[in-house]
Amino acid sequence: MRTRSNIRPARSGHHSRLALCLLTLVLMAASPLPSLAQGAKTDPLPSWNEGSAKKAILDFVVRTTTEGSPNFVKVEDRIATFDNDGTLWVEEPVYTQVMFAFDRIKAMAPQHPEWKENEPFKSVLAGDMKGLEASGEKGLIGVMMTAHVGMTTDEFAKIVADWMATAQHPRFKRKYTECVYQPMLELLAFLRANAFETYIVSGGGVEFMRPWTQRVYGIPPQQVVGSSVKTKFEIRNGQPVLLRIPEINFIDDKEGKPIGINNIIGKRPVAAFGNSDGDQQMLEWTAAGKGPSLMLLVHHTDAEREYAYDRQSKIGTLDKALDEANAKGWIVVDMKRDWKTIFPPVR
Amino acid sequence: MRTRSNIRPARSGHHSRLALCLLTLVLMAASPLPSLAQGAKTDPLPSWNEGSAKKAILDFVVRTTTEGSPNFVKVEDRIATFDNDGTLWVEEPVYTQVMFAFDRIKAMAPQHPEWKENEPFKSVLAGDMKGLEASGEKGLIGVMMTAHVGMTTDEFAKIVADWMATAQHPRFKRKYTECVYQPMLELLAFLRANAFETYIVSGGGVEFMRPWTQRVYGIPPQQVVGSSVKTKFEIRNGQPVLLRIPEINFIDDKEGKPIGINNIIGKRPVAAFGNSDGDQQMLEWTAAGKGPSLMLLVHHTDAEREYAYDRQSKIGTLDKALDEANAKGWIVVDMKRDWKTIFPPVR
Repeated sequence: MRTRSNIRPARSGHHSRLALCLLTLVLMAASPLPSLAQGAKTDPLPSWNEGSAKKAILDFVVRTTTEGSPNFVKVEDRIATFDNDGTLWVEEPVYTQVMFAFDRIKAMAPQHPEWKENEPFKSVLAGDMKGLEASGEKGLIGVMMTAHVGMTTDEFAKIVADWMATAQHPRFKRKYTECVYQPMLELLAFLRANAFETYIVSGGGVEFMRPWTQRVYGIPPQQVVGSSVKTKFEIRNGQPVLLRIPEINFIDDKEGKPIGINNIIGKRPVAAFGNSDGDQQMLEWTAAGKGPSLMLLVHHTDAEREYAYDRQSKIGTLDKALDEANAKGWIVVDMKRDWKTIFPPVR
Repeated sequence: MRTRSNIRPARSGHHSRLALCLLTLVLMAASPLPSLAQGAKTDPLPSWNEGSAKKAILDFVVRTTTEGSPNFVKVEDRIATFDNDGTLWVEEPVYTQVMFAFDRIKAMAPQHPEWKENEPFKSVLAGDMKGLEASGEKGLIGVMMTAHVGMTTDEFAKIVADWMATAQHPRFKRKYTECVYQPMLELLAFLRANAFETYIVSGGGVEFMRPWTQRVYGIPPQQVVGSSVKTKFEIRNGQPVLLRIPEINFIDDKEGKPIGINNIIGKRPVAAFGNSDGDQQMLEWTAAGKGPSLMLLVHHTDAEREYAYDRQSKIGTLDKALDEANAKGWIVVDMKRDWKTIFPPVR
């Protein structure tokens, strides 16, 4: 990236290019001469076992990035979209954002003594999941909304970042941001190394993800598409703020995914990655593009190292999308068979 | 950009770097050796007259891109947002998108014989602006909506592109995409050369802009924020489409601009460019950032070469924002005084 202003005297313009060239030549001569074969041996997806899924990914990237190939895709059209929950990080036993909401309700409880008597808050504070379930979808939405609104966008980003810094997954006893899939981190990096722009397109809250996606996935805020509440512009003490208010703005799930992609990216992806029926329409939208396309579903088949679930699961149901993947030849990753490693090492 | 797949044998890795270096050296020797001073003389904003506006822009870019400067801005935070109508292209005598809508109504009229008798369509077909005004805001919104919905997103993009290819500005007798401001094109390119990401943040329709912003401004679809209608995901003949439906999704104007920026970019701009009260909140939001920031308003003062309007204008009213700019020392570009050229040469 050119960080140098081009209005400053370019006295070093030619000289610096010359210097860089000479330096490169010197370094090439001085370095222990990596053999030409080393490049060929470098595996961009070391946590993927050899097999049809890995091969299909590698083939797709070669085909779409080789100039002159009939499947060549111009750099500006290399858009890849990734679901988050269950595709990039663990979504069982319950979505991380729901865990966040419960902790937030507990943190807010001292200011709301009435919650001790009132559902659905009473159940959340008692850790009574069955009680919460009894309040139905309306109860859960009420809890989620209460936990996510009433503060400015800056305040919310700090609340999320603070929580992520300490909260741990109940089974894996590591931070949620460490419950990400190593094979998918490699895939993100590999696509970016081949000039793909990588986006998250998640049913999760966009402002719940943006504070940490750059650090964890290498994906900047402007490449995160998600669900959102409405915000209100206000002047507070002479300073403008955006206040998060209790009204749904957009649900980025199922049919919402292609709609969100169109709203925010304005280009059709050439590669899309998901793990559930919530991703089906995004994969259909991607498959319907004119050029080459790659559609991939992560199938959770590994109860020992992670979780095993599909058609009957409440979270991350993979049923209709699995049928469509099988019928249309989309890639289905068998986590147990295809992934050598699940999680990155804890730093 | 690395367009080369890193999974193919890297047999040419070292060799190609060597070849590139040698080629560079050869070219440098063969070229007519531009003097070192040439860089210093190269003006990145040749269509801007010397003066406080130009100086403030140049100073800002030097300060924010010089490592070690107290005002240095990291590359990932270099977000610059531009209004479109009246800031990047002409908005008088009427917004281009309204002209588009009128032409579209005329094109649709043969399929709607009833429009000959019914307002507001009757007035549009008769070219009777006063008649249309008599139908009030509701009438105009009805015309705009009718012209913009009922087709798929792909169909709409083609309708816009086809119209842009031939429609002409009534006064300047050149295509609307040629009624863009040469000084602003230079500013966009200059910012990008200094690693700023340039975004459009416009009250205009996002899907009305995306088909041509890359070609005209060098701004890709994913960096265009605008107003939008809702879309509906449907399967038609086995293929998914997004149908544009007659319901407002978002109005990206006034308070909507910081909201749209937060929704879609998720980062606060460090530089914002506008020309009207519709841009006031975007500039306030930008000014409230923690680091350095640049706020600029284009003041239309040149009735001879373009238009002169501000506080009393129906389109592009510049009143409260001008007062705030004067009070806070935001840059106000005096078009007549500050711009050497208004439009680029017609190709």
